[in-house]
Formats: sequence, C-alpha cells, structure tokens
Amino acid sequence: MEKAFITFGEIMLRLSPPNFKRLLQADVLEVNYGGSEANVAASLAMFGNRVRFVTKLPDNPLGDAACRYLKSLGVDTSFIKRGGKKIGIYFLEHGASVRPSKVVYDRANSAICEAKREDFDWEKIFKGAIWFHISGITPALSDSLVEISIDAVKIAKERGLTVSCDLNYRKRLWSREKAREVMGEIIKYTDLIIANEEDAADVFGIEAEKTDVISGKLDVEHYKSVASQLLKVGSASMVAITLRESLSASDNYWSSLFYDGNEFILSKKYHLHLVDRVGGGDSFVAGLIHGLNKFSSKREAVEFGVAASALKQTIPGDVNLVYEDEVLNIMKGDVSGRVQR
Amino acid sequence: MEKAFITFGEIMLRLSPPNFKRLLQADVLEVNYGGSEANVAASLAMFGNRVRFVTKLPDNPLGDAACRYLKSLGVDTSFIKRGGKKIGIYFLEHGASVRPSKVVYDRANSAICEAKREDFDWEKIFKGAIWFHISGITPALSDSLVEISIDAVKIAKERGLTVSCDLNYRKRLWSREKAREVMGEIIKYTDLIIANEEDAADVFGIEAEKTDVISGKLDVEHYKSVASQLLKVGSASMVAITLRESLSASDNYWSSLFYDGNEFILSKKYHLHLVDRVGGGDSFVAGLIHGLNKFSSKREAVEFGVAASALKQTIPGDVNLVYEDEVLNIMKGDVSGRVQR
Amino acid sequence: MEKAFITFGEIMLRLSPPNFKRLLQADVLEVNYGGSEANVAASLAMFGNRVRFVTKLPDNPLGDAACRYLKSLGVDTSFIKRGGKKIGIYFLEHGASVRPSKVVYDRANSAICEAKREDFDWEKIFKGAIWFHISGITPALSDSLVEISIDAVKIAKERGLTVSCDLNYRKRLWSREKAREVMGEIIKYTDLIIANEEDAADVFGIEAEKTDVISGKLDVEHYKSVASQLLKVGSASMVAITLRESLSASDNYWSSLFYDGNEFILSKKYHLHLVDRVGGGDSFVAGLIHGLNKFSSKREAVEFGVAASALKQTIPGDVNLVYEDEVLNIMKGDVSGRVQR
Amino acid sequence: MEKAFITFGEIMLRLSPPNFKRLLQADVLEVNYGGSEANVAASLAMFGNRVRFVTKLPDNPLGDAACRYLKSLGVDTSFIKRGGKKIGIYFLEHGASVRPSKVVYDRANSAICEAKREDFDWEKIFKGAIWFHISGITPALSDSLVEISIDAVKIAKERGLTVSCDLNYRKRLWSREKAREVMGEIIKYTDLIIANEEDAADVFGIEAEKTDVISGKLDVEHYKSVASQLLKVGSASMVAITLRESLSASDNYWSSLFYDGNEFILSKKYHLHLVDRVGGGDSFVAGLIHGLNKFSSKREAVEFGVAASALKQTIPGDVNLVYEDEVLNIMKGDVSGRVQR
Amino acid sequence: MEKAFITFGEIMLRLSPPNFKRLLQADVLEVNYGGSEANVAASLAMFGNRVRFVTKLPDNPLGDAACRYLKSLGVDTSFIKRGGKKIGIYFLEHGASVRPSKVVYDRANSAICEAKREDFDWEKIFKGAIWFHISGITPALSDSLVEISIDAVKIAKERGLTVSCDLNYRKRLWSREKAREVMGEIIKYTDLIIANEEDAADVFGIEAEKTDVISGKLDVEHYKSVASQLLKVGSASMVAITLRESLSASDNYWSSLFYDGNEFILSKKYHLHLVDRVGGGDSFVAGLIHGLNKFSSKREAVEFGVAASALKQTIPGDVNLVYEDEVLNIMKGDVSGRVQR
Amino acid sequence: MEKAFITFGEIMLRLSPPNFKRLLQADVLEVNYGGSEANVAASLAMFGNRVRFVTKLPDNPLGDAACRYLKSLGVDTSFIKRGGKKIGIYFLEHGASVRPSKVVYDRANSAICEAKREDFDWEKIFKGAIWFHISGITPALSDSLVEISIDAVKIAKERGLTVSCDLNYRKRLWSREKAREVMGEIIKYTDLIIANEEDAADVFGIEAEKTDVISGKLDVEHYKSVASQLLKVGSASMVAITLRESLSASDNYWSSLFYDGNEFILSKKYHLHLVDRVGGGDSFVAGLIHGLNKFSSKREAVEFGVAASALKQTIPGDVNLVYEDEVLNIMKGDVSGRVQR
Repeated sequence: MEKAFITFGEIMLRLSPPNFKRLLQADVLEVNYGGSEANVAASLAMFGNRVRFVTKLPDNPLGDAACRYLKSLGVDTSFIKRGGKKIGIYFLEHGASVRPSKVVYDRANSAICEAKREDFDWEKIFKGAIWFHISGITPALSDSLVEISIDAVKIAKERGLTVSCDLNYRKRLWSREKAREVMGEIIKYTDLIIANEEDAADVFGIEAEKTDVISGKLDVEHYKSVASQLLKVGSASMVAITLRESLSASDNYWSSLFYDGNEFILSKKYHLHLVDRVGGGDSFVAGLIHGLNKFSSKREAVEFGVAASALKQTIPGDVNLVYEDEVLNIMKGDVSGRVQR
Repeated sequence: MEKAFITFGEIMLRLSPPNFKRLLQADVLEVNYGGSEANVAASLAMFGNRVRFVTKLPDNPLGDAACRYLKSLGVDTSFIKRGGKKIGIYFLEHGASVRPSKVVYDRANSAICEAKREDFDWEKIFKGAIWFHISGITPALSDSLVEISIDAVKIAKERGLTVSCDLNYRKRLWSREKAREVMGEIIKYTDLIIANEEDAADVFGIEAEKTDVISGKLDVEHYKSVASQLLKVGSASMVAITLRESLSASDNYWSSLFYDGNEFILSKKYHLHLVDRVGGGDSFVAGLIHGLNKFSSKREAVEFGVAASALKQTIPGDVNLVYEDEVLNIMKGDVSGRVQR
Repeated sequence: MEKAFITFGEIMLRLSPPNFKRLLQADVLEVNYGGSEANVAASLAMFGNRVRFVTKLPDNPLGDAACRYLKSLGVDTSFIKRGGKKIGIYFLEHGASVRPSKVVYDRANSAICEAKREDFDWEKIFKGAIWFHISGITPALSDSLVEISIDAVKIAKERGLTVSCDLNYRKRLWSREKAREVMGEIIKYTDLIIANEEDAADVFGIEAEKTDVISGKLDVEHYKSVASQLLKVGSASMVAITLRESLSASDNYWSSLFYDGNEFILSKKYHLHLVDRVGGGDSFVAGLIHGLNKFSSKREAVEFGVAASALKQTIPGDVNLVYEDEVLNIMKGDVSGRVQR
Repeated sequence: MEKAFITFGEIMLRLSPPNFKRLLQADVLEVNYGGSEANVAASLAMFGNRVRFVTKLPDNPLGDAACRYLKSLGVDTSFIKRGGKKIGIYFLEHGASVRPSKVVYDRANSAICEAKREDFDWEKIFKGAIWFHISGITPALSDSLVEISIDAVKIAKERGLTVSCDLNYRKRLWSREKAREVMGEIIKYTDLIIANEEDAADVFGIEAEKTDVISGKLDVEHYKSVASQLLKVGSASMVAITLRESLSASDNYWSSLFYDGNEFILSKKYHLHLVDRVGGGDSFVAGLIHGLNKFSSKREAVEFGVAASALKQTIPGDVNLVYEDEVLNIMKGDVSGRVQR
Repeated sequence: MEKAFITFGEIMLRLSPPNFKRLLQADVLEVNYGGSEANVAASLAMFGNRVRFVTKLPDNPLGDAACRYLKSLGVDTSFIKRGGKKIGIYFLEHGASVRPSKVVYDRANSAICEAKREDFDWEKIFKGAIWFHISGITPALSDSLVEISIDAVKIAKERGLTVSCDLNYRKRLWSREKAREVMGEIIKYTDLIIANEEDAADVFGIEAEKTDVISGKLDVEHYKSVASQLLKVGSASMVAITLRESLSASDNYWSSLFYDGNEFILSKKYHLHLVDRVGGGDSFVAGLIHGLNKFSSKREAVEFGVAASALKQTIPGDVNLVYEDEVLNIMKGDVSGRVQR
Repeated sequence: MEKAFITFGEIMLRLSPPNFKRLLQADVLEVNYGGSEANVAASLAMFGNRVRFVTKLPDNPLGDAACRYLKSLGVDTSFIKRGGKKIGIYFLEHGASVRPSKVVYDRANSAICEAKREDFDWEKIFKGAIWFHISGITPALSDSLVEISIDAVKIAKERGLTVSCDLNYRKRLWSREKAREVMGEIIKYTDLIIANEEDAADVFGIEAEKTDVISGKLDVEHYKSVASQLLKVGSASMVAITLRESLSASDNYWSSLFYDGNEFILSKKYHLHLVDRVGGGDSFVAGLIHGLNKFSSKREAVEFGVAASALKQTIPGDVNLVYEDEVLNIMKGDVSGRVQR
C-alpha cells in the first residue's frame, strides 16, 4: 500500500539576484523553482514520503527544467500535464535589515492558470493516496482553477483523504470577497486549515484584535481567538497558525499555534537569522503534515513543523532541503549551530 | 538641430545560461536586454547619434532595469510609455558546433503587445527626427501593433523622415499570409528594406532559387534577383540582404548584398568565430543606417554595416557595444585580432 | 524651468572582493563606481531630480564605463570633461564583525586631480540650477582642485544657488591645517554643512567632548554643541551631523542631528545589519537635499535623509539605488522587512 | 510491460575548473556527476526509456547528491545500494588547442569498489528488463567487481537480455593481461561490443596496423579488420568502433564503424568544435542502443548513435542532455547551428 | 640564526558550496586548503615567522596546488614528502542560524595517512628550530602516524624545542581509549597543551561539571578545574582552553582560559558574527605561540591569541590571513569595525 | 651551488572581464598578475629553476598579493623592494575572432617606475646567479629605470652572467629614438636578443621587407635578414625571433627563428586556438632560456621554447603554468589534445 501525499498548484521559475543586489543592478539571476504546494510536495518527499505533485507545465525546456527539479527531490511528476504556453515566473529581490524583500510576479497566462478540468483525472491521481493539500493561491489564479480546486477537494474528501488547506491570501490575485466565497467552499472539505497572521482577517474577516503586524510583536491570546473562529467557519477539525515576528528582513522570531478544538498548542519560538525566508510557511505545512502522520502526539507534530520551517529559512531556495533526522535534532533543542563532523 | 533617429519595437529581458550550458542545467542565467529595434537604437547611440527608442514597459523593477540599460548606452528613453503588466522575456540557449542555439519566448501579453494607439504621440516623437526604423517583428506581436506600426511609418513618411524596415519574419508570431498583408502595407512607406536570406521568401514569396540554407552555401546571383524583386514590391529605393553562411553554431561566414536599383554592392565577406550571433542582423542595420548618413559612398556605408555586424558577433549580448572608430579599423582590413596596447 | 542639482568631484572605479574575502585572496573583483559627490548625484537622480555631475574622466574604456554607470541612473554626464590619463580607483575590502573594512586608494594623478580651471565653464554648468554640492574630498585631491572648488562655490553663490558642503575630512589627502584653511574659505559660501562625528574636530578643531568614537557610544548633548559651533565658523544657516554608532563591521546604529540655528532635530535611530556601509553619508546628504526641496518641514527632510541612508547601507555598491516611495515607507516606520509581493 | 534498460558501474563526483583554468589555479570547481555506465543510463533515460542504474554509493550528502542528479534525469535509482565510505571523485582539467585535458582520479576505496556480491540481487534488478550494459571499467575497479560483473552478464544472458559491453580499457586500473582474462570471460555473454581505437589492441591484442593515433589520421580498412577480429574473440554478433580523429583538444572529427558479421556500416563523419568531449563514447553507446531498439535499420541506429554523441560533445558535463528529436534533426543533416526560435 | 617553527600533520583540499547552499544543491564548490597543523603553520608565517610544514602529499596537480597554497603564504614546503596516492579532502557545508555546519571527510588512504617513518628525517627538519606543534588529529589518522608523531615529539624535546599539542579529539577517527593511550604518551613531551571544551573530557576523562555545551553557556570555575587537571596528566607547564559559546551557527562568543600552574588568565570575550568558524581553534594556537614568543607577558600572549582567532572567524577559508598589526589593533580594543582608509 | 636566474622589471595587477565581455560591460574583473620579466621568472620557476624576481612593490595589500602570487609559483621574492605608492595595473579586454584584444594601462607612477638606484643591491642580488634577463619595457618606464637597467646589465656582465634581453618595444612608453639610444646601450651587454616581428624595426630600424603584419602572413627569408642584422647592432651571439601569424584574435600560427651567427633554426610551427595569448612571448623567452641551459642542442632549446609558449597560449593568465614534462610531450609531437588519464 502506497500512502501517497498529493499536492496541487503552480510551480514557478524563481529568479533572484545574488548577494543582496537589487533587481535594478542584477547581471545574473539565480535559478530556483517553487510555489506553495510544490514546496510542500518537495519537503514531504525529502522526509521520505511518496508524493505526487499535480500541475500543468509547458512542453518546453523551462517546463522540463521544473520537472527535473521536482524529480531530483523524489517527487512523482507523472501526473503533471504538459501543455500550455508559459511557465509562471517570479523575480525575488532579497531584502536585508530595514529593506524588505520584493517579489515581481509574471504568472498570468501560465499553463496552470489556463488549465482545463479535463487536464486532471482526480480518480487516477488519488489512487492509493491518503492526503491532499492545496493552498488559497491555486484557486486565486484563474476561474477554471476555482472549479478544478473545488473538484479536487470534493473528490479527495469523498475518497477519504485527509484534506489540508493553507489560506495563503494574495491580494494581487483576487479580492477579499471572491476569496471568501471560494475559500468558504473549499474549507467545507478541509480537515486542517493553515493560516498566517493576516490570512484569517483577509479571507474570513476574523480579526486578531490589537495586534500590530508592522511592529513585529504579537499577542498569543488573540491568536487563540482567531484559531477558534477559524474552526467554526468550515468543517475543519484542526487549525495551525504560523507566527512570524519580523524584527527586520534579516532577523525574525518564528513559532506556531495549533488548535484541534480541544487543546491549544503553542510551539517553541525560534530566533532566526534569515538566509531565505520564502517558503517558510510551506515548509511548516509539510513538517506538520509529516508530523501528524508520524507522531501520535499533536504537540510533537507541531514542534516538528516549526523546527522544520526554522531550518528552511536558513537554506537558499523555496524548498526545505532537509531530512527528517535533521529536524529531529532541532526539535531536541540543538540549535547551537556547532559544526557536525 | 537634432537629427534624431527613432526606432520602435519591443525590448525584452534576455536570460541565458553561461558557458554553453543548456537551459535544462542552468543554475544561473545571465541578464541582458534586447529586441530587434532596441538593438538598432543602442548601436546607433554607441556611434554617437541622438536616438530615441519608443516602446511600452511595465512600471516595475524589470521595466526600470530595461530603461536603465538603454540609458546607460545613451539612448533617449523619455518616449517610453510606462504601464502594462509584463516585460517580454526570452531565454537564449547558446549552441556550439553542431548544436543549434535555442530561443524560448515569453513575450505574449507584454506591455508593448498590449499597447494602445494613444500611448504614442508620433508628432512629438518625430520632432527633429530624420530617420525611423521598424522591423517586421513589431506588427507581428499584436493587432494593435499592426495599427500603431502603420501609423508610425505613415506619419514618419509624411514628416519627411527616411524609413527603414527589416522584414524579420518570425513564423511563431504570425502566418505568412498575415505578414504579407501587413508588411505589404508598411513597405509602401519604406525607403530601405533589410532582409535576411529567408525573409523575402517567407513574407513576399520571392524565391532565391537553388539556394540551400541548411548546407550553408549561397549563390550570389540568386540574391541579386531577390534584391531586385524586393525593390519592386514596395516603394523602397534601397534594399540590403544579409548573407549568413552557417558552417556551424561556432563558425559562420557573414557578408551583405546591397542594391539601390542601380548598382549591386557585394560586401567583403568575414569569417566569424562566434561569441554571440544574436543581434547580428540588427547591428548590420544600425551600421548601414549610420553609414548611409556618414559616407557619401554607398559602398562605404554597406562595408561599415558589415564590419560593424562582424564585430557584434564577437560580443556577448544583443547589442553591438562598439564605437565608430573600431568599425573603421575593421573596414580598413585589420581583422588580425592583434592586441591593441 | 529645470531646477537642476549640480555636484562636483571624483568618480572612481571601485573594486572589491566578493563574499568577505580579503584582497590578499581575491580571484575576482566586483566592479562598482563611486565617489562622494557622484554618489550624491546618483541618489538625487534616482529620486527623480535633474542632476548634472561634473568631473574629468579619461577618454578610455574605463572613463566610458564610469559615464555609462552614471547615465544608466539618469545623471546628466554632458558636463564631464574627457581627458587626462587615468581614472581614480579604490579597492574596498569588506569587513565583518570585529574585522574592519579596508580601503586602498589609487587616485593620485587621476584625470580629475590633474584637471585645470579651463576644463569647467561654471556659468554654463550652473544654467537653470538651484543647488550645488561639494565635499571636502574634492579640494583635498590637488592644488588645482582647491582653486576650482573655490571658483565653483563662489560662482554658485553669486548665481543664487543653495550650496551644500560635506566636510568629509580625509587625513591621507591633506593635513588638518591645509583642510582648515581651504574649507574655511569654502564654507563662507556654504548654506548647509554636513559633517560626521570626526570631521568637525579634524577640520575646525571643534571638539565633541567626552565622546569615545571607538566604543561606539555617543552623547547627543555634545553633538548639539558641535552643531552650534559649526554654524559659527562659516556663513551656513543649516548643519547636519550623521551619527554612526559602530557596534561592529556588521551592525551599526545610524541617526542624525540637524540644527538650523533655531531648533535641534534629532532623527529616529535605526539599527542596521550592514550589507555595504560605504556611501552611507553621501546617501544621507542626497536624502536631506531632496527632503529640504520636497518637504516644508525640516524634520521631514531630516527623517527622509536618515531613512534613505539607512536603506543605502543594505544595498551593494556606493550608490543608493532606491526610489522616493521606498524611503517614504521606511519613514512611516515599516522597517519589519516583510516580503512585498 | 516495462522493457527496462539496466546499466551497472560507478558514478563519480566530477570536479573541474571553469574557463580552461588548470587545477593548479582553480579557485572554484564545477560540480558534475558521471561514470561510463551512468552516462549511458542517463542518456537512455533522456531518450524516454525506462532505465535502472545499479551501483553502490555512500549514505552521505555526496551520495545523496549523485542520486539526486540521476533521479533528476529520470533514472530509476531504487537499486542503488547505499553504504560504504566514499564516493569516487575525478578531477577534470579541460584542455584547449595543443594542451590535452587531464584527469586525476580519486576512486580507490569508493563504495562501489568495495561492494560485495550480496549488495546486488540481479534477479530482482533484471525483472522486466530487456538490455544490460556494462563497460570494462567496472570489473577493472576491484576483484569483487570482477566477480559481480561476471555474475551480472551471466544472469542477464540467462534471462534473455541483450548484453552490451564497452571495452573501455584503462591502463591505470589494471594490466593488459588481467583485462584480457576478465574481458575475455565477459564478452562470452555479450551481444554487442563497443570499442574505441585503442581498446581492441590493449585488451585483445588486435592491431589496427599502420594507424597512427597521435597524428589524428585513420585508415578505415584497418578498422574493418579490427571489427572482424573482435567479433571472433567472443560470442558477440555486433561490434561498433568509435573513430575519433583528434586535431587538437579543441577540434575533432568523429564517426563510427559498425559491423554485424555481414555489413560494414561507416557512419557520417562530424567535425566537432568541442565543448566537453568527456562522455562522448558513452553517449554513442546510449544512442546506438536506443537506435537498435527504435529503428529496424542498423544504419539508422548507428547514425543515431553518432549524431547523439556529436551533440554530447557540445554540452558541458559527462551526460548527453539531449532529447530524441534533437538527435533526429542532426541525423537529417541540419548541422548548420542556426538559431531555433 | 633561524628560529624556525615546525608543524606536522595533514593538509586537505577543502570544498564548500558558496552562499549557504547545502552540498545537495551545490553546482560549484569553492576551493580552499586546510588542516589543523597546516593552519597553525600558515598563520605563524603570516605573522612573519619562519615556518616549515611537514606532511606527505601526492605528486599530482592536487598535491602541487596544496603546496602552492602554502608557499604563497610564505610557509617552507621543502620538507613535504611527495608521494602516495591521494590528497585528503573535506567537504564543508556552511551552516547558518539554527542550522549547523556539516563536514564530510574523504581522508582515509591519503598520502599522509599512509606515510612511513622513513619519509621524515626529523634531525634535518628540526635544524634551527625552536618550536614544534602537533595536534591530536595527526596520530589519530593511522597507526604509522602514531609512531611518527611520537618520534617527532620525542626528538623535538630532546633537541630542546618547545612542544605544543592541541588535543583536538575527533571521535570519527579513533576511540577515546586509543586517544587516551596515545595522547597520554605525546603529552609527556609537551610543554603547552591546548584543548577546547570537550577534548579534556573525551581524551582524559577530565570533566567540566555542570557545563552544558549544547545550551552554549559556560562556567569559568569548572574550566579552571579542567585546566589544573590537564597540567597534571602530562609534563606540560602551560595549558590553554578555548571557550566557544555557540548562540547559533551565525553568532558565537569566543574567549580563552590560560593556566601556567601559577596564574589563571581569562581573556577578553568577543562577540562574533561568523563568516567562517573553521580553523578558529588553530588560529588561536598560532596566535598564542606567536604571542608567547613575542611578549614577555603571558596575558598579552593569550590576548593576542584570542584576538587573532576572533579575526580568523571573519575570514573565508581555514587560514587566518591577518598580519600582526591587525591583531594588535583588535587587542587594543578597536572592534568597532569602522572603515580603515 | 645555486645557479640562480634573475629577472628585473614590473609586475602588474591584471584585471580582465570574463567570457569575452568588453570593459564597458564588465561587472566583475578577473584577477591575475603579470609583467614581461615577472612572467619569465615565473615560468622558469615552474620548470624547476631557482629564480629571483627583482622589482619594487608598494607595502599594501595589493603589493602583498602580487608577492603572494610569485611565491606561490616558487619565485624568490626576497629581493623585492617594498615601498612607493602604487602597483601598476593593466586592464585586459580579451578579443575574439575579428575583434582585437585591448589593453588599458595604469602603470604611471607605480612603485617600480619611481624606484631609485639605491633600492637594489645588484652585487647581493646576483650572488650565485648564472643568468640575467630584462626586457625593453623596464627602461622604458622611467628615467631612473634607464639608469638602473643599465647598471644591472653591466654588473651582470661583469660578474659573468649570461644576459638576455627581449626588445619588447612599447610605443606608448617611449619614442623610437629614445628606445634606440637606451636599448643600443643595453644590448652591448647582452648575449641573447629576443624580438618579435616589429621590435627590430621599431627599435633599430631593421626592416623585414615586404612583410605585411596585418595580413598575418610572413616571409622567413626576410626574418633571416633581420636576425643577422640584429646580431650586428650589439655584442649578442644569439638572437631569437618569435613569429606570430594572426589569423584572428582566436586563431594564430606560432613559431620561432633562432640564429647564433652560424646556423638558422626555424622551429616547428603550431596552429593555436587561443585561450590567452598575453605572455606568449615571455613564455618563449623562459622556455628558450631553460632549453639553452638544459639541452646541448640549440635546436632542442628553440623547440622547447616554442612548444612551451604554444602551451602558454592555451592557459588563462600571463604566466605559463606548465611543467617541463608537459613541454617535452608537446615537443615530441603530441598535440592531438587527447585526454590524459
């Protein structure tokens, strides 16, 4: 029996200037590949799971290269539909200190945005699968993806898969109203909701009162209230909130709050000197999913997720290129960074 | 008095793997900027001319960077309309020996493709101008660009500018039929037509009989016939044909045939060990335009164009980063490549 | 009406080893261009102002490349005199933590050092101008530059330009005595003096008592006394002092004290995790000049200057490659470094 | 039905200085992975075949990275035994013109060299397989590999697989006497022998009379005699000889002679301006194997192999990163290297 | 009179991915050379001492390159025995923040591991020498090196050299039991023992009670007890303990405790934002040895050692590429990192 | 007995854009060190000789780095006078095909140019020496170097050293008249004159009639006449002329004519596909000097020089990083460039 994990979304070519250069001064761009659900897939595969990533990619060298990247990490790419005209691209300018990172997207009209319902045979895709993950970015990309995403969660639910959904609100992609409508539908079929500080408010109007995101401080009590409210809007039984306190583009605190309707679990908090914070949330999702399937204790699952995503933010690229034992070491408290010989 | 040169078209972000790597194996991509008419503009500016490049670019860091590149070479960018959503991109894989170079375009829906008639005030743009250049790529990009391109050549002609047009047929962008219709209109207002070996056939069905492009050999007599026929399809008084004999992706012969209805001028032929052949044709156009304005003799103008474009193909990037005196040295016959101290 | 800003000084080729390597171990050197007044010019141009940079550069590829850099940022280079034999060069070794950055200069006999009075026609240069900026480095470079610098400030003053002068004392270039004599003359024509912690003492013997520069701590009261005294030595009506507290080569505090004879304005203080601190003072000058011309409130002008220069120190190279809106965001207090999508 | 291709041997970490630098002056080394049979596996996978590569790799990040490389190209790595202490390494200094390339090996005591018989379950490995390929390098690496290699070819033969063997004599690894003894045993089970100019002589004492390898010229008649003799020493029914004429480290001629006991097929000869000649022979083997399985005509199979390996030598790295359609284009005669848009 | 310093051990090729990449994602590896005693030799030479490094290196381009590196820093390499089959290699993955650095060794069977007694003529090597340094790594590498190391310290002692020994326990190389036996013998001839926090416990079972290495905090009193005990196990008259408090892979505190049987000297403590912590201990050893020979005061010697090694950790590579005057500046308290012009 | 070789001249920092970029587009510059006599010294040291290089270098990190480079290759740098203000720099733009390489010098006022007679104690320098080499560049650099150069050759001659002098005329450094006067004096003390095609004419007005340097063809008979005349102008007994036929910046023919007053030796001619032709002449000088000291036959010496310098031109940098055995292989005729395993 396979026990496969399925994720569905976009994988983009990521291009970023090296050494804290601005896009304006870039003479070379470093190549990576990433996208919210692709990052979750890749991290789950690195942890030793069977993982299928579902998307659509153009049948050209750029599509090939994205597939090659996923395959290199052990992700099954055989359900990737090839066709369409372009791969989504994003340009990432790494910030530092008081200067924020900047992202310029070029993803409109990408192959996945223009995918059609018939491109994906969910019955086949879900064969032998136990988990399905999607984020709010996927339905935000196009109307056909709204339809396809709802198809996917429904069929997943029917077939008895556990469904997780990261709200991941992107204001450039859709309005709050549209997001609320679509995500409201999707979380009907969702078992585990993941959200960051602002998603709950943006998508469902759930407010974490008196919290000032810009100042970088946070108030746990309010997040408990947010978590409780999130469980009520859909049919989910678990919710996880990632808590990022941005001291600057170079230093953050990072932790998570988990709630299963029963117990609030507030994870250990990590101080991170950041190498690459992009994909931090996705690596938390992957770590949490892996943890929930590995540990009997939810606390351990959450701590695994947070430790995994702490590590991610020290690694260049979108993807959390770490193994399970490395995460377990961090969980045990060894964050001294001593050389391992 | 200004005596400005105007060119109109797209400038793209060009991304290419270094050191003959394939796109499939690229971990960094080198950044350049280029596009047929932008390349002509930049080379004319390097020769010391006043040049305005007209296009539309998104108001984001990538648009800024493209402008910055043009400004650095002395091109006037004040008539570039800012707006729209994306910059055109092309991925260039450099070939070598028997392996051809490959280009993957991502230019659909770029700002210039979606430009509107009202984005460009040609009366203002042409103030003080003496020359207007466009290539067949620009109208091929979108229907609105067909309209705008025809506007531009008409107004240019009315205002007494010399108009040049490089046929530059791209089969991926439009059909031969559409190209024939539109280019047929444009060359009504054109004084100087530039074409490479295949354009005349593709766009106007003019055949260079018995010439086998793949084998890399060519037959001058047939090109004379092609040149003569090209002068007849429109109102142009001059035609220039670039003659590339591709021995391999690493070695080419390069020359030109010019005809003004009177005399056939066959240029010197250069053996080139190629560094970057992209933009070779555009640098010829710039050299020829510069030459026609500098020299009283057409032969000198043509030889200047061919020498300029021979140099271009030894320089990385789309643009011919050479000065007038460097071209004159090549024209004089110094192609020995000795170190200049 | 143009409202141009003029700066005069040297632009050098800057060469630095990447990735914290020492010069001793460098196998490549990264190319940038910079110089105190050139940096001010470039930053003012990035903020959207019309700016002319005046210098002398050799007529060779290195002089061309320096011009190209300035033009790329929108600086008018048409008043740069071409001639002379060499471009000034400086080698910058980036420090880290307890290791200081090191600069090795190779600027003696550069074209600007050997410039002559007749190389610059100040009446023409100042046409349509409202501001002239110079630093103490320029007259320190050679005797002829003493003469030319005094010419420039006198003519600027006569023509009604606002004149700013950054004391910028460099002990390698001249003695304190010579500096005091020449700068004493220059600040007779200066409206705005900028100085860092040590300049006032070095050039005018004005002491900030009890302040220990090495320990990295500072005492604001003493700087108020310094500011007051600086206003008295010349005819300036404004003085700005940059306050850098060096915790290490990697971390600094950064703020400014401004005094207009009336009110002391102590800016917000930023904690900076440094990417490149070179040019920090120059970017403050540019920000302050821009702010004084943009805002009616001097506090806003000063805060703009400090925010701008905080950003600079997160960007590789001498020049502050940021736009006005990015500075305004920092001024508003968003220094959390969150990703901007 | 799977129709899998199996290859067995070593995959090494390849480290090479960029830009024609010598090892003595290298400050960075470019990372690739390669080994004779691994290269064959990877190329077969690029052509769309199901391929399993069998080896032993240490269970450390270097072993992981080698696996990751193979997986990225679609090679099945599930039969790679993990264990042992080190990955084989080779340092490659690229030559140019009159300077030869140099290889320094560090492969003694690698995991595969110390592999044991029980590490490989050939019955399982060969399930669903139709072809087995090995080269003379594998048994040359250690005594246990002699045993394992003979196991493998015997079992392959018993199970009805086609067996191919590239003689690939390496004088640093074993003596001619030992090679003759072991390879004499292996080719008893071999259907297709591949050899280059010197292997036949070194391993089996078969002489290509009057041929002077150093001068770079060759005499086809003698190679026909060599091919005939090679068919007689074992039970093979096909033999292919790669013919390299080294004009210099930068330019070669490349072709092949094939003999099936019936007809001599002399392939087209390519002039190659080399990017990376390492792996040229392996890419020929992969192309020939693919061709023999794809085409009914042996001439087409041979031409496919030669065209494939001509392309390889224009690509950095050991592996032939080309698709089937790209090889077919070369076979059709398009070696002009024109840009493909 | 020469007053030479001799060190004996291995020098390895060090390969590390740039920019915090993991080995799994490295496409290039940066080349450095290092090894505990080689690092001490190189630093002593940078301080202006006559230094001979003794080892065995293969007679191939990699051995040449290692020699070239040492010679470039002024180390006398004429006593390096050339021969054997391989150079030791280590792969270093730089950690960041919570992610530890990782080292993968490939040093088994290196030339020095397989060196024989007759490869080194200690009488000749020690001619004119005043100091001999070795670390516990050298005898740990092979049985023959146990013998040779004991030879070396004995002869050094007999000839009146001062002998220093850094315990440097490596659990991958030998057992605690074997280490205790061999090192127990070596420190009989040792004047100065250097150890880090764990070595005393690992090698001699000396416990620093209640100290929790992982938490990164330390308790000076216990280290005093450790120092006292270390003086008792052998015949040494001085012991130095390096005290590293690892806050993370990016930030450490660094200091030292020195004891000469008389006075405990606790050095200044430095906060380090790390560039490359590898070789930190070796640079302390070199600084201490240099200090003991330069200063009459032991406190100055210790402070010199700690300041030197603080600087090392801001420099890429194993070796402390700093001069004596740079260390003296740090000792004087200038750690503000201000630019030195 | 030492048998040392001495060379005297300038060593410069060489900065060059990678990958055929122009200086105008360089974002990094590759670091090398070179200078005519330094190159000879380094190559002689690579061949295993004892070599002292004499120059003056500033006491700063750039001077240190140049020394470090020479020491790394085994050159004795202990007679290098440290002092003065700057290191000479040259910027090298690599040409390709029809585009010539370009050199921009920044060597005026370098430490060696401003050296004084008392900086060099020739009696000490020449102790144990058998050969002294200088080129015409050294006296061309400054008037004091004229004096010092003449000192050096005189003392060398008196002490019985063999003196070689490469005419190396540089028109930017001095006039033909001054060169003739000074070089006329120097060759009075010279045993071996080396010249390229143009030096004899430029310096001594000796014409190689009917030879057209630009066309790249040459006429051996005329060079024989030049060689004969060169022997007559001074007291030399041997003359060597390097013969470069520049087909382009990418391809050259390379050979030499040697004459000892008795026999004309015309070397083998090599076709070179160039990697870096700078230093080609110097490597010939080093090879010839080594050959004259190694072989009894002058033909072998000349062939060694030509083979050595053929190799040089395939290696990046000024210096011929090859060993004696590699040159001997080329001499034997193995120029096929086959991989050496």
